[in-house]
Amino acid sequence: MRITIIGSGNVGTHLAAAFKNAGHNILQVYSRDLQNASLLAYHVRAQAIDTLDQINSETDLFVIAVKDDAIETVASDLTKHQKLMVHTSGATDLQALLNYTANAGVFYPLQTFSKTKEVDFDTVPLCIEGADEHITSLLEQLAKTITQNVYLINSAERKTLHLAAVFACNFPNYLYYLAQQLLADQQLPFDLLRPLILETAQKVQQHLPAGVQTGPAIRKDEKTMSAHLQQLSEKPELQALYRLLSQGIIKMDNAG
Amino acid sequence: MRITIIGSGNVGTHLAAAFKNAGHNILQVYSRDLQNASLLAYHVRAQAIDTLDQINSETDLFVIAVKDDAIETVASDLTKHQKLMVHTSGATDLQALLNYTANAGVFYPLQTFSKTKEVDFDTVPLCIEGADEHITSLLEQLAKTITQNVYLINSAERKTLHLAAVFACNFPNYLYYLAQQLLADQQLPFDLLRPLILETAQKVQQHLPAGVQTGPAIRKDEKTMSAHLQQLSEKPELQALYRLLSQGIIKMDNAG
Repeated sequence: MRITIIGSGNVGTHLAAAFKNAGHNILQVYSRDLQNASLLAYHVRAQAIDTLDQINSETDLFVIAVKDDAIETVASDLTKHQKLMVHTSGATDLQALLNYTANAGVFYPLQTFSKTKEVDFDTVPLCIEGADEHITSLLEQLAKTITQNVYLINSAERKTLHLAAVFACNFPNYLYYLAQQLLADQQLPFDLLRPLILETAQKVQQHLPAGVQTGPAIRKDEKTMSAHLQQLSEKPELQALYRLLSQGIIKMDNAG
Repeated sequence: MRITIIGSGNVGTHLAAAFKNAGHNILQVYSRDLQNASLLAYHVRAQAIDTLDQINSETDLFVIAVKDDAIETVASDLTKHQKLMVHTSGATDLQALLNYTANAGVFYPLQTFSKTKEVDFDTVPLCIEGADEHITSLLEQLAKTITQNVYLINSAERKTLHLAAVFACNFPNYLYYLAQQLLADQQLPFDLLRPLILETAQKVQQHLPAGVQTGPAIRKDEKTMSAHLQQLSEKPELQALYRLLSQGIIKMDNAG
């Protein structure tokens, strides 16, 4: 397929690379910042542009990978080319595009991307939605060229997924940060915790989290929990968090 | 070394296997439950016993891997053999053993163990502490036979580590559970989140968590956070957790 990438952030960068690797033709990369556009365009052998006036209409698909609040502006601009367009946002309804064209869909990769770290796209879940069956089928075929994990997900489901991803990714990373800070307070290296963090994530690759929960709360070990709260006596925010999370874990056990 | 394992729980099981693999001689495995003792003893070619009366004095080291509140009872019973003993508890002071013998230390593997999943001990951080320099040095040598990551950690530091491990392991696993439940409410499979969870843990293997924080809170994306809180309107506990964690992430950014 001939594909045009709108946006050179983390999602645009990783999707463009995955499409290119799969043999698709990346025509153009757009970014407001020409330097960013050029960097990505160079990697995927595309033309870099920094205004939407320069869009080449001879494409098959616009992949809109811009900030959520810019999606509609871009869509309203691209609609005149009368080509299929998809956004890549977990938090945005398909309706955001349908306001401008019926030739629309969603192509949402459920992964956390950094520009500095390569991602093996082969296992990234791709959640797709089309405005009609024909579009859905086309997006499904396209998705299968870059990953084995393709899911048909409607806008309501995608909203839930996006929220769940905050609990599964953003919040755990913040807890890693808090743990790292606790160690740093005593000049202990974060390396001490890295294998534990990795093993915890690896455990739920085969098991469900409820089955592998460990720690004082699930054992209802009041003595250890009291000692931990005591250790946090000068950090009221961490105490509050410790209480709330431990209470949740205790209930999780009660619920079976 | 000739090693006697007291306790056949997760830690005892994994340590016994690691010692055996490293060529040490496991003399006996004790558990109150003879069947548990026998199962582990069979794997490491040791004798299974279910009373401390049966302890063979001709050992070099007692590894006390029992529940925290049973450590002192076991120590008081073993002290008559006048052999080195270590406990394996993150939450317990060395003093718990020193009350009974000066020939004591701590051998704390900082990892989450399940009986159903093999752990590559080679990368597990082992935190050791000896009652004197001779013991510390001996435990350090022993630790190095089973892992590359040996740390000298005193009792105060170990308490911090144990607390930090709750934030880095037990609490993230609970958040995985909440995410899984959010999906289950809409019959969405947990497989959708598994690659994200793994990648999030893999990112902090090279980076510090603060450098790879993503999500609406770090972007101060109030619109998405409000939408998420709205989605959680019928789950007040999750709302409270979402607020507290997001507020923390926002501050984390402010602090640089």
